[in-house]
Amino acid sequence: MRALTIELGGRGYPIRIGAGLLARPGSWIETQGRPLRLVTDGHVAQRHLPALLKALPLDPAHVLELPAGEAQKTLATVETAIDWLVRTRAPRDVLLVALGGGVVGDIAGFTAAIYQRGVDFVQVPTTLLAQVDSSVGGKTGVNHPRGKNLIGAFHQPRAVIADLDTLSTLPARELRAGLAEVIKYALLGDAAFLRWLEQHVDALLALESGPLAEAVEKCCAMKARIVALDERETESSGAGPRALLNLGHTFAHAIESHAGYGEWLHGEAVAVGLCMAADLSVRMGWISGEDGARAVALVRRAGLPVQPPRTLTPDEFLDRMGLDKKVRGGRMRLVLLRSLGHAFVTGDFDPGQLRATLAAHCTAAAVTP
Amino acid sequence: MRALTIELGGRGYPIRIGAGLLARPGSWIETQGRPLRLVTDGHVAQRHLPALLKALPLDPAHVLELPAGEAQKTLATVETAIDWLVRTRAPRDVLLVALGGGVVGDIAGFTAAIYQRGVDFVQVPTTLLAQVDSSVGGKTGVNHPRGKNLIGAFHQPRAVIADLDTLSTLPARELRAGLAEVIKYALLGDAAFLRWLEQHVDALLALESGPLAEAVEKCCAMKARIVALDERETESSGAGPRALLNLGHTFAHAIESHAGYGEWLHGEAVAVGLCMAADLSVRMGWISGEDGARAVALVRRAGLPVQPPRTLTPDEFLDRMGLDKKVRGGRMRLVLLRSLGHAFVTGDFDPGQLRATLAAHCTAAAVTP
Repeated sequence: MRALTIELGGRGYPIRIGAGLLARPGSWIETQGRPLRLVTDGHVAQRHLPALLKALPLDPAHVLELPAGEAQKTLATVETAIDWLVRTRAPRDVLLVALGGGVVGDIAGFTAAIYQRGVDFVQVPTTLLAQVDSSVGGKTGVNHPRGKNLIGAFHQPRAVIADLDTLSTLPARELRAGLAEVIKYALLGDAAFLRWLEQHVDALLALESGPLAEAVEKCCAMKARIVALDERETESSGAGPRALLNLGHTFAHAIESHAGYGEWLHGEAVAVGLCMAADLSVRMGWISGEDGARAVALVRRAGLPVQPPRTLTPDEFLDRMGLDKKVRGGRMRLVLLRSLGHAFVTGDFDPGQLRATLAAHCTAAAVTP
Repeated sequence: MRALTIELGGRGYPIRIGAGLLARPGSWIETQGRPLRLVTDGHVAQRHLPALLKALPLDPAHVLELPAGEAQKTLATVETAIDWLVRTRAPRDVLLVALGGGVVGDIAGFTAAIYQRGVDFVQVPTTLLAQVDSSVGGKTGVNHPRGKNLIGAFHQPRAVIADLDTLSTLPARELRAGLAEVIKYALLGDAAFLRWLEQHVDALLALESGPLAEAVEKCCAMKARIVALDERETESSGAGPRALLNLGHTFAHAIESHAGYGEWLHGEAVAVGLCMAADLSVRMGWISGEDGARAVALVRRAGLPVQPPRTLTPDEFLDRMGLDKKVRGGRMRLVLLRSLGHAFVTGDFDPGQLRATLAAHCTAAAVTP
């Protein structure tokens, strides 16, 4: 087992990464002596709940199985979860366990954030995307029909338990979606990791355990460092270090809100967003055309889409980008690339070049994920 | 204008108390240069919005008028408010103004807490209850059919602006409900203030401006001190200083959830709760029967009920108390009185005496508020 710590003063917490963690009692020290509730989805429950129950005996009434999928990430689902907590009389010192991918983690985390004005929770991510990104850092929330994650809270978990064995049963499409976030980390902050990824992307797609552990640990370490610097995404400016984690995401959110949540996986939309951010960075003259092509090539090698759905026009794309949380004082900020391995937040891009990027990507035939 | 500051490190904020503040531009320094949205209710808008608009010009589309009343304090109303923020494209640096009583403040504050994972808001309380209690300290939230404020967040406002002129149009019933919280402050922490209240309760009921200003400032100062010591009600133990502010509230919440939110005003239920907490403290031998009678007499002089609704049986009362946020590790804690002017949190009361208190109050004919 590898262990990292996210440093947040009194709210710091451990991230445990390794094989077979679910069934090992030592993974669960935060749960000792606490009343427990567990939220998961039907798919994950079938695959991973039996292993977990070996180490963590739970009353079946204290397990909530939600339907799977991003379409569940609504305030209505949170209300269902709260009704269940109330019905099972979960006290204020309850510890809520979120077993599943990013959707389960976001729903359960937000439920924990607002039940009785905040109770403890533990993230147990079972997808690559959740292990490398969404389970760490305390962002929780649900979607609004007009915008992704528009409703939410910052609420840090008490621990993150990433069992690498759960990835072996991950559908290929979800594995690839997770790789989009891995590529994001390389592009935004680590040129050496980018080279490593280019060498190991096939091994990751083949689920080789050594490289997988390496990638999960690398991404968690990067995220832990960034979140420790800027826990709440520098509320006043929106240009703090944490905003860099949104590389590709303003584009991605527009795609997801157009397509309807659940049609495109979040990671697939991020993949396209990375390509579009690279394209705009090339057009602005910040990175070379060669570097832009290198980013797109890696996304393609991971089996991910590089263009938005063909039904999304440039005007609608721009409109859907406008409500993104990165808009401040009426000016849109984007995370773009200064070089491969170095992202920055800027409002100083040429809107005409943004339109050119949208036109180039939206009119082309889309690769359906 | 009197000004207090609530000391919370980087999240500290001013509380301004005075006559005519709504129409005075100097009250609104936090709003300068910010995109604004205002949430209020129909009654309050009619009475106070014109004065406010003199100092704070607002696009009518940027004002949300909710129906009045505690029954509105639901997740559905929060969803309505969020839909409106999204529709009017409120950006992440929006400042949300909550103009109204405790219900509007709780709804708008919780909306601000979860819109885009948290935006700024200002409390502009227009009832005595909101001015002395609910607008200060960052508790926001809505009710669940099974429990009061079971859904919520700690989210501090950027400022509290308490215009005493708004109290002059307050219905008598709401004025009395506010006095219940004023009496709570005296009972929980200040014997001298209790004596002052006994001398000035008639002046307060007659809306005399000097005593009103005195009472609002006194309660805000007490609350500011307690919240600065214990912003989040000492999550781990539930026995921190802030819990003292819940004197009478475990009883009150049972009454409100039985009666249906809105039938009893929160302050009316608190009034009964104060009497029941005093009664249990007498039964435990912590205060004299004389002191208990003194507390009840003050509640009566304020024109407030001293007994729960006659339809509430002791068993149901106990059951409804059980889901309160003060339950930890399966043991119920209550805020009770060590002396008049000195409350404490304890799980060490005799459950039989609690039953006796419930039996004594629930079987008696209730005073309908």
